[in-house]
Amino acid sequence: MFRNEIKVLDCTIRDGGLINNYQFKDDLVKATYRAACDAAVDFFEIGKRLCESEEFPRDKFGAWNFCDDDDIKRVINSHESETRPQLAVMFDVGRVDVAALKPRDQTDLDMIRTACYVTDVDKGLELVKRCKDLGYTTTLNIMAPSVAIETELVQGLEAVNESEECDYLYLVDSFGAFYSEQVAHYIDLYRKHAPGKELGFHAHNNQQLAFANTQEAIIRGVNLLDATVNGIGRGAGNCNIELLLNFLKNPKFNVEPIYEVIQEHFVPLRNEIEWGYNDIYGISGCLNQHPRAAMRLRADKALRDNCYDFYRNCQDLD
Amino acid sequence: MFRNEIKVLDCTIRDGGLINNYQFKDDLVKATYRAACDAAVDFFEIGKRLCESEEFPRDKFGAWNFCDDDDIKRVINSHESETRPQLAVMFDVGRVDVAALKPRDQTDLDMIRTACYVTDVDKGLELVKRCKDLGYTTTLNIMAPSVAIETELVQGLEAVNESEECDYLYLVDSFGAFYSEQVAHYIDLYRKHAPGKELGFHAHNNQQLAFANTQEAIIRGVNLLDATVNGIGRGAGNCNIELLLNFLKNPKFNVEPIYEVIQEHFVPLRNEIEWGYNDIYGISGCLNQHPRAAMRLRADKALRDNCYDFYRNCQDLD
Repeated sequence: MFRNEIKVLDCTIRDGGLINNYQFKDDLVKATYRAACDAAVDFFEIGKRLCESEEFPRDKFGAWNFCDDDDIKRVINSHESETRPQLAVMFDVGRVDVAALKPRDQTDLDMIRTACYVTDVDKGLELVKRCKDLGYTTTLNIMAPSVAIETELVQGLEAVNESEECDYLYLVDSFGAFYSEQVAHYIDLYRKHAPGKELGFHAHNNQQLAFANTQEAIIRGVNLLDATVNGIGRGAGNCNIELLLNFLKNPKFNVEPIYEVIQEHFVPLRNEIEWGYNDIYGISGCLNQHPRAAMRLRADKALRDNCYDFYRNCQDLD
Repeated sequence: MFRNEIKVLDCTIRDGGLINNYQFKDDLVKATYRAACDAAVDFFEIGKRLCESEEFPRDKFGAWNFCDDDDIKRVINSHESETRPQLAVMFDVGRVDVAALKPRDQTDLDMIRTACYVTDVDKGLELVKRCKDLGYTTTLNIMAPSVAIETELVQGLEAVNESEECDYLYLVDSFGAFYSEQVAHYIDLYRKHAPGKELGFHAHNNQQLAFANTQEAIIRGVNLLDATVNGIGRGAGNCNIELLLNFLKNPKFNVEPIYEVIQEHFVPLRNEIEWGYNDIYGISGCLNQHPRAAMRLRADKALRDNCYDFYRNCQDLD
């Protein structure tokens, strides 16, 4: 049995781009889009929509950090599909030019997701309103609630609840710190203070729990689920979309194109960039820490597997 | 808050030995034992206790397939500890010489775990009785219940319940096929038909769910939990003991010695043998299949990552 309301959002390119500064070649982006189409995934997030500038030039920061209309057209025109997913990009508060965004009916985009920290929820909701005014489906993704002061988080949730323009409110386990009981706790909290909002969930795999926690979110009634091909994503990565589709059992989904794009594109990519669970990310997750120290260590070929030293350093035990 | 009744069984050497035919060097076994002592783990399973024979010689099948009294002494005499775990070995139905087993008070062993398939539960319980008569703590680990006919499984559970000699009954997810809902279902079933037995749980990580399913077992009241250092074990491996100890929060446990033995011994070992999640084991898990086809593929360096081909072959779609 499956729950028809559940929708899957493929954020492979957007979250994976955090590893390689959005330098994915067109071939990979097109192949991933094709897989999402053929797998009948509901949403496909093709990247971020940030401002190009002298400080943030396209050659250094990668096309998929900017996703202009031509970038998007290049991809979606590469594959005809009757099960085309709705197309999404992400806004980061403070780094977007919302004035440059065309109305939805003049672009190929359907959804704009705005990411912000708890302290920036009001700024996030301003962006959400602008996007909604232009006709887009909107989400607000509050990052790192696991380190937020709960009174501030609750105020943020209440503000989201009052926003008529926000379609989905996302629970985000930015540090991969949640066990299932925390997923349950935060979903209850989000429901209590934002009862009018449909919820989404975005996991990280620091403790090998991204897929399991996504299941817990499903059990708790969440209907919009983020996942990525092969679990690619910053640090320990995300919920593997292939595992999730296997679990969901909705006959509209087809997992085969996902395995195909893994075999053809992501297996070779694993020789170039690293993602997925390892001891170091496990430690940063269980300690509820930002993964930046773990990522720095993983970049050091000589020390990258020194989990004992890392564990002690994280706790200042030395 | 922690639950004092929860006990952790380190089966690193026994389950890890399935990968390398129990050819672990003494140094690694001693270091793992030392870590288990210093981490204050409750039980340490040092290997299997099978019969040596011309067909199963020690040089080919490895010391830790046989674990004679001298093998065990060599290890436990290498490290003094006030938090020495109880020592366990595993019996496989049909491959043991129970007549050669000395009484508990004449050996260093405390627990004997008997593994059998559903169809062999009665044979398993005979071994359990012999072990109990000799004074050992006993378990019966019913393998692969996910492919058992439920009427046979229920008969087996009822037989276990009638056995006065069996201390623990294990739910074993041999194929890594369970989602949390199946863990819950089988625990309910085991409780219903073997209400007198304390339960144990043994996971496999095919779908990145070994740790999560172990948490589900905890939530459902299971108090004896298998785990291994770095998740080592056949195929996709087991529940990582370091993640589990972090989760349990019982102050008697100390995770640092586990990270130390990983850094010193298991990181180098990863260059020699493979374990842990990958796409291939994910497929065999979600299809509830024995991992042998997946292991065979992983041994083929040219084809090992061809998850699309494997998925189609598994379903005879080609």
